[in-house]
Amino acid sequence: MEKIKPRTLSGFMELTPGPQMQMERMMEILRKTYSLYGFTPLDTPAIEASEVLLAKGGGETEKQIYRFTKGDSDLALRFDLTVPLAKYVALHYNDLSFPFRRYQIGKVYRGERPQRGRFREFYQADIDIIGDGKLDIMNEAEMPAIIYQIFQSFGLTRFQIRVNNRKILTGFYEMLGLAESSADIMRAVDKLDKIGGEKVGAILKEDCGISEENVREILSFMEISGENQAVLQKLENYRGRNEIFDKGLEELSAVVRYLGAFGVPEANFAVDLTIARGLDYYTGTVYETTLLDHPEVGSVCSGGRYDNLAGYYTDRQLPGVGISIGLTRLFYVLGEQKMLNPNLPTAPTDVLILPMTEDCGAAIALATALRQAGIRTQLYAEQKKFKAKMSYADKLGVPFACLLGEDEIAQGKCSVKNLATGEQVTVTTEEAIALIQKAVAEKNQGTVISE
Amino acid sequence: MEKIKPRTLSGFMELTPGPQMQMERMMEILRKTYSLYGFTPLDTPAIEASEVLLAKGGGETEKQIYRFTKGDSDLALRFDLTVPLAKYVALHYNDLSFPFRRYQIGKVYRGERPQRGRFREFYQADIDIIGDGKLDIMNEAEMPAIIYQIFQSFGLTRFQIRVNNRKILTGFYEMLGLAESSADIMRAVDKLDKIGGEKVGAILKEDCGISEENVREILSFMEISGENQAVLQKLENYRGRNEIFDKGLEELSAVVRYLGAFGVPEANFAVDLTIARGLDYYTGTVYETTLLDHPEVGSVCSGGRYDNLAGYYTDRQLPGVGISIGLTRLFYVLGEQKMLNPNLPTAPTDVLILPMTEDCGAAIALATALRQAGIRTQLYAEQKKFKAKMSYADKLGVPFACLLGEDEIAQGKCSVKNLATGEQVTVTTEEAIALIQKAVAEKNQGTVISE
Repeated sequence: MEKIKPRTLSGFMELTPGPQMQMERMMEILRKTYSLYGFTPLDTPAIEASEVLLAKGGGETEKQIYRFTKGDSDLALRFDLTVPLAKYVALHYNDLSFPFRRYQIGKVYRGERPQRGRFREFYQADIDIIGDGKLDIMNEAEMPAIIYQIFQSFGLTRFQIRVNNRKILTGFYEMLGLAESSADIMRAVDKLDKIGGEKVGAILKEDCGISEENVREILSFMEISGENQAVLQKLENYRGRNEIFDKGLEELSAVVRYLGAFGVPEANFAVDLTIARGLDYYTGTVYETTLLDHPEVGSVCSGGRYDNLAGYYTDRQLPGVGISIGLTRLFYVLGEQKMLNPNLPTAPTDVLILPMTEDCGAAIALATALRQAGIRTQLYAEQKKFKAKMSYADKLGVPFACLLGEDEIAQGKCSVKNLATGEQVTVTTEEAIALIQKAVAEKNQGTVISE
Repeated sequence: MEKIKPRTLSGFMELTPGPQMQMERMMEILRKTYSLYGFTPLDTPAIEASEVLLAKGGGETEKQIYRFTKGDSDLALRFDLTVPLAKYVALHYNDLSFPFRRYQIGKVYRGERPQRGRFREFYQADIDIIGDGKLDIMNEAEMPAIIYQIFQSFGLTRFQIRVNNRKILTGFYEMLGLAESSADIMRAVDKLDKIGGEKVGAILKEDCGISEENVREILSFMEISGENQAVLQKLENYRGRNEIFDKGLEELSAVVRYLGAFGVPEANFAVDLTIARGLDYYTGTVYETTLLDHPEVGSVCSGGRYDNLAGYYTDRQLPGVGISIGLTRLFYVLGEQKMLNPNLPTAPTDVLILPMTEDCGAAIALATALRQAGIRTQLYAEQKKFKAKMSYADKLGVPFACLLGEDEIAQGKCSVKNLATGEQVTVTTEEAIALIQKAVAEKNQGTVISE
C-alpha cells in the first residue's frame, strides 16, 4: 500500500510525552490558581459564526483568521478568547451574576506566517472579571496579584509585571493639547525600549508633527522611573491640570497600594509609563509581564481594564478587566531556554508491575491496590526478556518496578526495585505502597520551571 | 451602533457556569483515572493536513468533515482522536516506548445534520495502548476495568460493559462457509436489539441470500446468553471447527477471567455475541457500554482491539486496543435525564469576602490567608447595598460570606456567615479556615452523577 507521509502542520505545537507532562503541570496550576481566586471555568466552541466573531472587523484579525464555509454557513475559528467571552456574556446575560469572573484555557487560531516561536494554534489562558454597569478598582489590583501567584507557582522569580493606566496617558496628551495625535504618539513611544529616546523624538517631530517643546515634554514624562512610590510622587506634579489624568493617577495609586496588600513584592511589579497596550479598548489599568532575563521574548502575560466588553452585541454597558497568558508561546520559550525543570518526573507511571508467572491474577490484585492508594501503576504483561522490560522502564524513566514471581506470591509479598539505585526489597503490599508514595512525593517536589 | 445578534452555532455545546462546573468534575476524574492506569496525556492539533487526516478516505467521514483551504494548504478539523494518534505514533515512533499508553481528551468535529443530542463539536476522551509488533491480551481486559473505574467514580452503577471478540464472529461465519457475506451479516445482526430475530432472519435470507439453515444457525448463535461463564461454556461446543474461532474463544475467556481479577462485578459486564462494532479495523475484543436505564442512548463508551493502527503512514505493524468515551453526548444525556447531582456545589467560590470599610487592606489579607489554605475565595469590593451583595451570593450558591467591619478588624477577627443557615460567628482567621474547610469538604462529598 502506498503510504502517506505523516506530518504535523508547521506552526502547530505537538509535544512528545515528556514535555507534554510538563505542559499539563502548568495547566493544572492555572486551573487551580484561577479557581482559588473565585473564577468559574468556561468552555466555548472553537468555531463561531464569522459574523459574530468579526463583529468588530478589520485589521490584522481578518487577514489571519481561519474562515470557511460548511453548507451555507460562514464560519471561523476563534482568534482569541475575548470575543467569544463578549458573545457569551451578551447571550447568557440573564443566567449570569455580576461581577462575572471566568477563566478559560483554550486553543485559538491565527494564520500568521509561521516563524520560530510563533504558532498558528496556541493556548491562551484568560481570566476576566465583568461588571454590570460598574466595576470596582480593586479588581484591577487583583489581576497582577493573580499573575504573580501563578508565575511563582510555576517556579519563576525573575519576572516583572509592568503596570500603567491609560487615563494617565490620555490625560497627559490632553494637557499638551495633543488629544488627537495620542494614538500616533503611543505607537511611537512604544518603540522607546527598542530604538531609544532620540529616534522616538525624531519620529514624533517628523512623522507626527509634534512641536519640539512637546516632544521634550513627552520624552521627559516617559523617562519618569524609579521605585513605584517615587514614580507616583513625580506624577503628583502633574495633578490638577487634567481631570482624566487625575482620575488615572488615583486609580494607579490605588492599584499600587493594593498590590502591596496582596503581598506582591516591589521586585515583581513596576509602574511603567511607557506601557500603553495597542488595543483601543483599554481604558484604565494596563499590564504587561516580561521575563527579566529574556526581554527579547516580549510580554508573556498582558491585559487591562476596558469599559465596554460587548458593545457589538448589546446596549448594556459591561466594563471589565482581564489578562491573558500566551501559554503555548511561554512554554516554547521555557523549553528553548532550558528552563523546564528536568528533575520533575515525566514518566507516565510511578510503578511498572512485572508478573513473572503465567497467571496475572496476583499482579492485577497488586495493581488494583496500588492504584487505590493513588499510585500511578502500569501492568506490563508483554512476553519479553527481563532485560527488555528493564530497558523499557529505563527509557520511560519509571522510578519503580514491582516483581511478582512464585516466591513473592507464595509469601503474599512483592519485590520492589528502585530503578535509579538498583536496590530491591521484598515487602508486603502495604509496605510497598508506603515506600513508593514517599519516594514519589519527594520526586514531585519542586516547580515546573527552574531558573 | 447596530448590534450583531450574539449566538452560538447549533450543534455546539456551550454550558452555563453551573453545568460547566459539573463537566469539569468529569474531566478531572477522567484525567486522574487515566493517569492512575499509567496513560500519558497527549495533545495534538485540532487542524491537520487533509491528506493526512483522510489517508483512509471515503465514506461518511469525508462528507461530515470540516475541510477548508488557508493560503494553498488543504486543511481539515480532526473528526476523531484515533487518526491523529496514528499519525502521532508513526511520526514520533523513535521518541516513543512501546507499549505506548496515551490518553487524550479533546474536541473533535463532524458536520452532522444537527439534531437533539447530536453535536458537531464534541469531546472524546480516549485511551489507547499501542504495541510494537505484538500486544498482550491482558491489555484487552484492562480496558473495560478502566471504564468500570471511571463510571463508578462518576457515580454510575446502572451500566453494562458488553464484550465480544471479532475473531469469534469471523470464525463462526467461516464455519458456515459465509466468510464473504460476514460484513453484511454483521450489519443485519446489529439490528437484533431493535427489530428482533424474525425480521433480522428475513433480511439475512432475502437481502443477504443466506440459506434457511444458516439463518437458523446464526440466530441461535446470537441467542446464546446468560451468565458469562454459561455463555463461554456454550461457545465451547463450537470449538475445534475453526482456528480463528478457537483463538477468539481463548481470548474472550482470558478477558472474562482477568476482568474478575480486576474486580469488575458480573453485573457490570456481559459477554454479548451480538456486538460487532461496525468499523472494519477491529480484530479482537470489542466493547460497548450502555446505560441500563437508558438503552435508547446507545453506547456511551466503545472500542476494541485492532491489528494495525497506522498502516496508512508506516510499514510498521502497530497493534493496539482503545476505548473512547463520547463525553459531550454523555454529559448531554445525564443533563436531560436529571442525573447530574444537584447537591454538589457549582458556585465559583467557597467564600465571598465583604469588606465593610473604605480600606480593603484587611480584606485582602484575609483573602490571601484563605487562598493559601486552599479555600476558593472571592473579594467583593463593589459599592452595593448589603442586600444586593447577599442576593449575589445567593444567586451563585456561595456557601459562606466573610464580613469584615471595623469591629472585626480591631479584634483581629472576621464574621463568618453560613449563607444556607444564616448562622454567623465571629472568629479568628485560623478558626474561619477550619470551619470553612470542613464544610466545603462535606459539601464536595458525593459523585457527579446521582442515579
